[in-house]
Amino acid sequence: MLRSSPTRYDFYQGEQAAYISTLNSVWRWECQKGACQKVLITNETDDSILSLSECRLFCAESGAIWPKPTGEVSLGSYLAELNINSIDVEGAKTDSPVFALVKAAGKVFKEEIQQVIPSNVNVKGGKSLFVTVDISNPNITERSLVTDESYTLKISESSDGRLNALITAATFFGARYGLVTLSQLVIFDDIRNKLKIPRDFLVTDSPAYPYRGILLDTSRNYVTVDTIKRTLRGMGASKLNTFHWHITDSHSFPYVSKSRPELSKYGAYASNKVYSPEDVAEIIQYGKVRGIRILPEFDAPAHVGEGWQNTDLVTCFNWQPWQNYCVEPPCGQFDVTKDGVYEAIEDIYGDMIEQFQPDMFHMGGDEINFSCWNSTENIVQWMEKKGWNRTEEGFIKLWDYFQSQALEKVLKKAGKEIPIVMWTMWTKGDDSQITDLLEGGYKLILSNYDALYLDCGFAGWVTDGNNWCSPYIGWQKIYENKPATIVGTKTDQVLGSEAALWTEQADSTSIDSRLWPRSAAMAEVLWSEPSTGWAVAEQRF
Amino acid sequence: MLRSSPTRYDFYQGEQAAYISTLNSVWRWECQKGACQKVLITNETDDSILSLSECRLFCAESGAIWPKPTGEVSLGSYLAELNINSIDVEGAKTDSPVFALVKAAGKVFKEEIQQVIPSNVNVKGGKSLFVTVDISNPNITERSLVTDESYTLKISESSDGRLNALITAATFFGARYGLVTLSQLVIFDDIRNKLKIPRDFLVTDSPAYPYRGILLDTSRNYVTVDTIKRTLRGMGASKLNTFHWHITDSHSFPYVSKSRPELSKYGAYASNKVYSPEDVAEIIQYGKVRGIRILPEFDAPAHVGEGWQNTDLVTCFNWQPWQNYCVEPPCGQFDVTKDGVYEAIEDIYGDMIEQFQPDMFHMGGDEINFSCWNSTENIVQWMEKKGWNRTEEGFIKLWDYFQSQALEKVLKKAGKEIPIVMWTMWTKGDDSQITDLLEGGYKLILSNYDALYLDCGFAGWVTDGNNWCSPYIGWQKIYENKPATIVGTKTDQVLGSEAALWTEQADSTSIDSRLWPRSAAMAEVLWSEPSTGWAVAEQRF
Repeated sequence: MLRSSPTRYDFYQGEQAAYISTLNSVWRWECQKGACQKVLITNETDDSILSLSECRLFCAESGAIWPKPTGEVSLGSYLAELNINSIDVEGAKTDSPVFALVKAAGKVFKEEIQQVIPSNVNVKGGKSLFVTVDISNPNITERSLVTDESYTLKISESSDGRLNALITAATFFGARYGLVTLSQLVIFDDIRNKLKIPRDFLVTDSPAYPYRGILLDTSRNYVTVDTIKRTLRGMGASKLNTFHWHITDSHSFPYVSKSRPELSKYGAYASNKVYSPEDVAEIIQYGKVRGIRILPEFDAPAHVGEGWQNTDLVTCFNWQPWQNYCVEPPCGQFDVTKDGVYEAIEDIYGDMIEQFQPDMFHMGGDEINFSCWNSTENIVQWMEKKGWNRTEEGFIKLWDYFQSQALEKVLKKAGKEIPIVMWTMWTKGDDSQITDLLEGGYKLILSNYDALYLDCGFAGWVTDGNNWCSPYIGWQKIYENKPATIVGTKTDQVLGSEAALWTEQADSTSIDSRLWPRSAAMAEVLWSEPSTGWAVAEQRF
Repeated sequence: MLRSSPTRYDFYQGEQAAYISTLNSVWRWECQKGACQKVLITNETDDSILSLSECRLFCAESGAIWPKPTGEVSLGSYLAELNINSIDVEGAKTDSPVFALVKAAGKVFKEEIQQVIPSNVNVKGGKSLFVTVDISNPNITERSLVTDESYTLKISESSDGRLNALITAATFFGARYGLVTLSQLVIFDDIRNKLKIPRDFLVTDSPAYPYRGILLDTSRNYVTVDTIKRTLRGMGASKLNTFHWHITDSHSFPYVSKSRPELSKYGAYASNKVYSPEDVAEIIQYGKVRGIRILPEFDAPAHVGEGWQNTDLVTCFNWQPWQNYCVEPPCGQFDVTKDGVYEAIEDIYGDMIEQFQPDMFHMGGDEINFSCWNSTENIVQWMEKKGWNRTEEGFIKLWDYFQSQALEKVLKKAGKEIPIVMWTMWTKGDDSQITDLLEGGYKLILSNYDALYLDCGFAGWVTDGNNWCSPYIGWQKIYENKPATIVGTKTDQVLGSEAALWTEQADSTSIDSRLWPRSAAMAEVLWSEPSTGWAVAEQRF
């Protein structure tokens, strides 16, 4: 138990006492068994008085960088003071294809560092920092699944007392991760109100999996452009690289298609709850500067409804009892026998491909309900005319009739081969269907609901009780959701994972706390492929 | 299923078409079976084209007011346009004790109305609104458990075309509820970009229970002053009246006590994570203007720890294994045999009472661990000297020794009799201990964890899995947590309820989405004592 102890003022006198009295804290932090612990400041010298952020940097593995680097990390023992007003990021020449991107990423880097300082503190003094970005292939300005994302970062001090950070990378995308790592090394010492950075540092780093994503559904609830941008900001800081934008569904159609503007006019929740071409361009640019691909999904042939009311292309829309025709209300599915469907999706694919210039495309394809089609007179007659049985086999043929034409339209509009992503099946991490897909040679993006559906665990929304995939998934479970655990030795067929936030019960006010910090746990799983479990990562996390 | 249908442009021509083309929507809303449904605008007249907010006002019971008024509601069928720049709130004379409060509440009222208008819309024109506040007892400027919270509100149009809203109430606190109800009647018509209000309206209203609270724990995580103010804003809009501030605990001591400043100096998470006297004053004033009592809790004799390190007054602090000495780490409990404990709490009670001027006081008193005291040498010796057995009976005597002296200190510092609130026991809504308390004649504030602990259902934080009181509690369950269900006919002994947010796993970024909208469900239970269930309230909610 605690015994009576003298106060700190009893311990010291003179100059040292005068110095200590200028500090913002009576506590310093000490690394004990891998965690920073509070210790009373008595008569220590300046060097041994560490703030919490300083202690963490040295105490946690790999300089507390998240996600943990996969290559060598070397961290000296000296922290230099950094002058927030004297930071330069340079590298690409003005005529380089990546010039604008590097410039924008440098600006973001400086903004992020500014955020490290509490708003009511005015930090003075410190050394200048000169960041040099050396990109060996400056022609790569667009992401793909084979983009080299590796980088090295070296911090050192030159003879004139200036700090130099040298980032070398094959691509802009790798170089940007160097900036992210560098930004995590800049810490605020809240005992002395100083900005600091390690004087000597070296890291070599690259990710384990090429697809590291977050899915956000903007149809069940409309999500503001600002909220999407906040999401991209968090993703950039976690080295996630794909924002899978589930932009439309049967609930609303907020996407303003240039060639089919009536869809959002009729299908948005309100006239201001839309994503205009300007909004989309802003989001794409915001993502790109942060190294994030914006992957649009136009979900079909199910998950269509609002917006299509004035066409004859959607069947089952709002049908009741909904349980007979879809997995959640409102139901809605394309009448895939109509030629108009293919004209419409060609237009929408064309708009999306023109705007997003995506290196891959998501065609949706989940939760097709055969009973809906089987209850649609027009479809029944069409199938009978074709001589197709109304058995599961027949409806799979009908679905394939849609899917092959839809694929043709995507490829036509893309004007080239482009990787196609589709939903396959509902699954948990231990489902045997995953084995079947692996044996079929497919490449997988894991989004198993038992670990990566961030909407799980809240209240019911169609009725009371809790929602279907309860309980809430803690970060620890997400951290243990490792590709190797799920697919065994076939990790080379795994492109990565994505955490999904379906928005029946989340909107712009709650999305941040649903996504973070849990998505950052997945980010480390995908980047670092850790062999250890959540407990080892907890202090850094 | 949907069939091909003509677009809206086919239906009409001429002036009507010109008018309709100025609207922001292709949809109008119609009340069908108690819910607003979308209907395509064709050739309707202006009057029959309702925006969603207009439809809700007429479609939902009691003008969609939340919580539902308990008295008569009369709502005409005409909506007047309101001029946002011509709203006056007057009533109390400059020499009235409530003058400043009414003025401030009027300012808040206008700010809340301004929030109804989307930030990118410029609303023009409309009628002036003159709000008269008539308070029959203007001397009451402080709340108590018997404060008359009733009000009436009448809206009418005078012959000169001005709108008049007359609020009559016994007290400022009742009158403020009139302003809240009035603010809910001001709606934004997003089809025409107009601010509107019912021209003819009358309501008589008063709450069923006098204590309607939210507990916020600011010790396990520090919560910013801005976040507390946002919470108070939501409470004011829901007619909740008590912010129970669980300001300290064993985890941190952010409260800056004027007479014991060293407690926050040693006990706050950081030097800027404190509530200074200025912060406390700001929060009290912000609450008061919104009709909210700030009820401070100084939890003792358990739940003390950080901040007391340099005293000999706390035992078991940080002891391991914590399971032996408390319910969650870090452990800490007063050594109640020390006279210094009573000097310290007298100082703290004095500071709190001086600052908060509370009409009731919360002394904590939960989760005393006898094993902690039994493992403290000093206490063991003291009890032996007294001849007290170290049995449950003996430790209850020890606890009583603390509690009676502590109570004496509160009353001494209050200088008068003051209602004391204490934690009694952990309980669910169906616990038989509640019956015992009722038969003992105690007045109860319900905060049963199975329905009112808003931190339930998230991940584990001491280890993985889910937290102890999972699953997440939906608003439906909160709505069904009615005092009468729990205490039967003895509802007169129930002062009310409070929803509790313990912050092991919530901070300023997530508190809003934990508290809202669920606390508003409790607000209606306590204000309206509804005889119907959540499904009836769902459309209004």
